[in-house]
Amino acid sequence: MQERKRTEIATLGEFGLIKHLTEGIELKNESSKYGVGDDAAVLSYPDKQVLVTTDLLMEGVHFDLTYVPLKHLGYKAAIVNISDIYAMNGSPKQMIISVAVSKKFCIEDMEELYAGIQIACEEHNVDIVGGDTSSSLTGLAISITCIGEADKDKVVYRNGAKETDLICVSGDLGAAYMGLQLLEREKAVLRGEKEVQPDFSGKEYLLERQLKPEARKDIIEKLAQMNILPTSMMDISDGLSSELMHICTQSKVGCRVYEEHIPIDYQTAVMAEEFNMNLTTCALNGGEDYELLFTVPISEHEKIAEMEGVKMIGHITKQDLGCALITRDGQEFELKAQGWNALSEKNN
Amino acid sequence: MQERKRTEIATLGEFGLIKHLTEGIELKNESSKYGVGDDAAVLSYPDKQVLVTTDLLMEGVHFDLTYVPLKHLGYKAAIVNISDIYAMNGSPKQMIISVAVSKKFCIEDMEELYAGIQIACEEHNVDIVGGDTSSSLTGLAISITCIGEADKDKVVYRNGAKETDLICVSGDLGAAYMGLQLLEREKAVLRGEKEVQPDFSGKEYLLERQLKPEARKDIIEKLAQMNILPTSMMDISDGLSSELMHICTQSKVGCRVYEEHIPIDYQTAVMAEEFNMNLTTCALNGGEDYELLFTVPISEHEKIAEMEGVKMIGHITKQDLGCALITRDGQEFELKAQGWNALSEKNN
Repeated sequence: MQERKRTEIATLGEFGLIKHLTEGIELKNESSKYGVGDDAAVLSYPDKQVLVTTDLLMEGVHFDLTYVPLKHLGYKAAIVNISDIYAMNGSPKQMIISVAVSKKFCIEDMEELYAGIQIACEEHNVDIVGGDTSSSLTGLAISITCIGEADKDKVVYRNGAKETDLICVSGDLGAAYMGLQLLEREKAVLRGEKEVQPDFSGKEYLLERQLKPEARKDIIEKLAQMNILPTSMMDISDGLSSELMHICTQSKVGCRVYEEHIPIDYQTAVMAEEFNMNLTTCALNGGEDYELLFTVPISEHEKIAEMEGVKMIGHITKQDLGCALITRDGQEFELKAQGWNALSEKNN
Repeated sequence: MQERKRTEIATLGEFGLIKHLTEGIELKNESSKYGVGDDAAVLSYPDKQVLVTTDLLMEGVHFDLTYVPLKHLGYKAAIVNISDIYAMNGSPKQMIISVAVSKKFCIEDMEELYAGIQIACEEHNVDIVGGDTSSSLTGLAISITCIGEADKDKVVYRNGAKETDLICVSGDLGAAYMGLQLLEREKAVLRGEKEVQPDFSGKEYLLERQLKPEARKDIIEKLAQMNILPTSMMDISDGLSSELMHICTQSKVGCRVYEEHIPIDYQTAVMAEEFNMNLTTCALNGGEDYELLFTVPISEHEKIAEMEGVKMIGHITKQDLGCALITRDGQEFELKAQGWNALSEKNN
């Protein structure tokens, strides 16, 4: 392996580091009035609603640096926040990044992390308007705030789903979770050994879904082009079951989801079998797919049927019918939010 | 000591905890359209510039829970961000809070932390519009994003100071730093011992400045009432020297600051003597006072002289004259940014 250059962060100091990481950043969006370098960023949104979302990612809980390269981590951390803006039917415009790092990290590490963040920001036309670096006693913490815009009458909340609405989901589900299982298994196998490259051939899609998830800008754009305004929407970060229950609780409705309609990739299915896991459970409860879950009035059925990359998986019901999965053999099971829970016992 | 109730966070889970902490929160500001509970907060700022600032605070680096009660920590974490909005000559309006906690914390701890945040938000008319809790492997991390507004032509940056401008500072300096020294000393004295109450009498002001700093809303309001628009402004979080150099670098100017005019409280002076520290150095380099440092045109001299709680400490010069302190005996010393640096060696 090539020797990597390692420059201690202390050689630059706090102000030097943030200056180094953010220099050369240009503001491209009309709404970005002033970026890095003052007490606050200055933005202007005269004609739009402003959307603000934030995420705090902790090493060892939200990511594992033994198998996540820092560039991928930066990319994913940015994407997760960008995805939240799309999930409101908005367009991401600005980002503020705070990082706290322990001594094990060097300037080159921070450059990698920032490079990943910047790639994601460029892809989604997001300006980096603020940043901060400080130290941490243990590990890496990343806090990202993403700001976006939406037309006043186009913001889509979680609470607007209506009885008979169709439930739709983009892409496929469970792959990011299977990618995580795969990485965890290889980590366990390789623990203590060196210079052995795990064989991931034929499983690239699962790894990509876990390590480099995408935010579904394309779906938001297509919905707008086709003049479809979802009645409710959110992105799937904790798992389909959990997110569906958020929409149903907040909209005061129930739902029926059909097992046979849940979109699952071939590699996900193969991997679930290899791990002896129930495939539907993986698709329902595996998190981090960052696909969009949304509901539309039943009158949009034909338009949605035409849409590439979107599947109708069920429909909204009266609240007293509860939330249930209809299996392939016609049985009804109550949905449970077993989603990936960063505060559950196993993660502590 | 009274036995405190301890309820494990796992009994509520992630969604339960955030729901528990944020329930009953009402939105009061016109600009707050939708708060906690969706992928992003929704705000509306048709006629104003939007200010956004964020801070990431890590246990053991930015705060020490051995002497900082969680309620004070919450209050201070909120104030630090609110202060950044005032420092742009804005009004804080919304806040989003993310916390990551290890198992040593219980629900009652989080309630304390939130109670402190809420007190600060109520004092400054800030709506809590979003939040998130997750776990951490070690200690507590708090990420706060504060959003505010300012009239388009009233935003004050760091880069507008002009030659001959007067340099002004609110309140007094160095007290928060002396408060920290005091707490650190008592911590060292008491290490290993129990139930001994340190004697802080006569030093209450220093402790209050460290544990419960205030954001200078009153100064921003007074400046507006008196029709004074500063040419540059920032809040003093890292120390007067360091902040002055930020203003001078960004404004491409130099400055002269007079030792005799730097406002210092009596308790700070007494304490510096007790610690055998140079008082001016403490006032120049001690951080966390959260006072406002600003420059105004020399034509505002009389108005500023009338203002209670504001002192003129020097003036802006041409850039090539550099940044210097004029001591009581007329000597000139170059200012150095020795400010509290969270990435410096000693803090790692």
